[in-house]
Amino acid sequence: MNDKEMKNSKRISDATIRRMSVYYRILDVLECTGIKTVSSKGLGAPEGISGNKVRKDLSNFGSFGERGTGYAVSSLKMNIAKILGIDRKWNIVLIGAVQFSTVLINSDLFKKRNFYITKIFDETREQIGRKINDITVLDMDNLEKEIDPYTDDLAIVAIAPPEVQSVIDRLSKVGLKGILYFAARPIHVPENIVVRNQDISIELGTITYHITNS
Amino acid sequence: MNDKEMKNSKRISDATIRRMSVYYRILDVLECTGIKTVSSKGLGAPEGISGNKVRKDLSNFGSFGERGTGYAVSSLKMNIAKILGIDRKWNIVLIGAVQFSTVLINSDLFKKRNFYITKIFDETREQIGRKINDITVLDMDNLEKEIDPYTDDLAIVAIAPPEVQSVIDRLSKVGLKGILYFAARPIHVPENIVVRNQDISIELGTITYHITNS
Repeated sequence: MNDKEMKNSKRISDATIRRMSVYYRILDVLECTGIKTVSSKGLGAPEGISGNKVRKDLSNFGSFGERGTGYAVSSLKMNIAKILGIDRKWNIVLIGAVQFSTVLINSDLFKKRNFYITKIFDETREQIGRKINDITVLDMDNLEKEIDPYTDDLAIVAIAPPEVQSVIDRLSKVGLKGILYFAARPIHVPENIVVRNQDISIELGTITYHITNS
Repeated sequence: MNDKEMKNSKRISDATIRRMSVYYRILDVLECTGIKTVSSKGLGAPEGISGNKVRKDLSNFGSFGERGTGYAVSSLKMNIAKILGIDRKWNIVLIGAVQFSTVLINSDLFKKRNFYITKIFDETREQIGRKINDITVLDMDNLEKEIDPYTDDLAIVAIAPPEVQSVIDRLSKVGLKGILYFAARPIHVPENIVVRNQDISIELGTITYHITNS
């Protein structure tokens, strides 16, 4: 990387880098469904990003599209992977994973935003009945019985992909108002419930970008 | 909410809502340090958001600042809390918290981005030695001995706030390149390591906003 490129890469905001991760995810979906080209408008649309913003973001890193034909999906995906540094494998160590719930329960910052963890569910036999900071871990089989839509508002769903869809379906029937889940994408989002995905790999992308470009 | 306001609130992107959460967090820090007023430039600066963008974001919801004097910190903070719906308590149920690590380990989407969990650490006696999807949980006391900076690149730190700082310090000395941590903010970020915070409450803010404004 020469000095000029160095300077350029330093000016790029994390917000842009995060959107590059989002484009990568959208391109991946397009590629999987066999779509060969996409316009800047089409690339931003699934996440409500304007075509103009897409073009502006990408122009920070080079010239990828062609007037009239748009972007070649596979090639742009590869280029973004290179920019983010995720064209190579990153090994990650996970520290304190089993305590993740205690992070949320103890966090003053979390409570300052008026977010209170009131119930914890798990399906692992040896976890049920255990206490995590005075909250007894409940059996996931009893979600419907234990959740009270008059006092419980939201759910954070931190379970592995295959089960996410069925759990979101169950939670929406119970009457919860909103769900935050990790890592996977369910196919059907029930009506009358707000569902968002916390994709950790987007924030990891800002880290790998800065490591790759430093 | 009348029809016109309804329409307006529907046009606002989640990206804007996320930035509103970010402003809230910055205003909270300013308030705690006794600062009474802040300019739009000052409000955006800690997260690299331009003053122009701050003004544009806030103008979606009303007129809060005064020319020349800027924004009143406490009052703007209260207004944003109201907009996001976090001026009231939200009860959250946590589903599958103990399995959080398996979400990351199993996720195909995660691996598609070239992110591989290679080691898991915990300090809970009964977790050490346990296997999570073929990865043996290691003792956090042995971080320095177990982590190999030639093969391990990043760390995801999912432990409670009081210990986050010391763990980040230890990881930076070991030679890891990047760290993603949750919920808390350490005071000192060591040099030569890229550290980012995954603040779950920002994404929760988009959920409470949509629930509050629907």
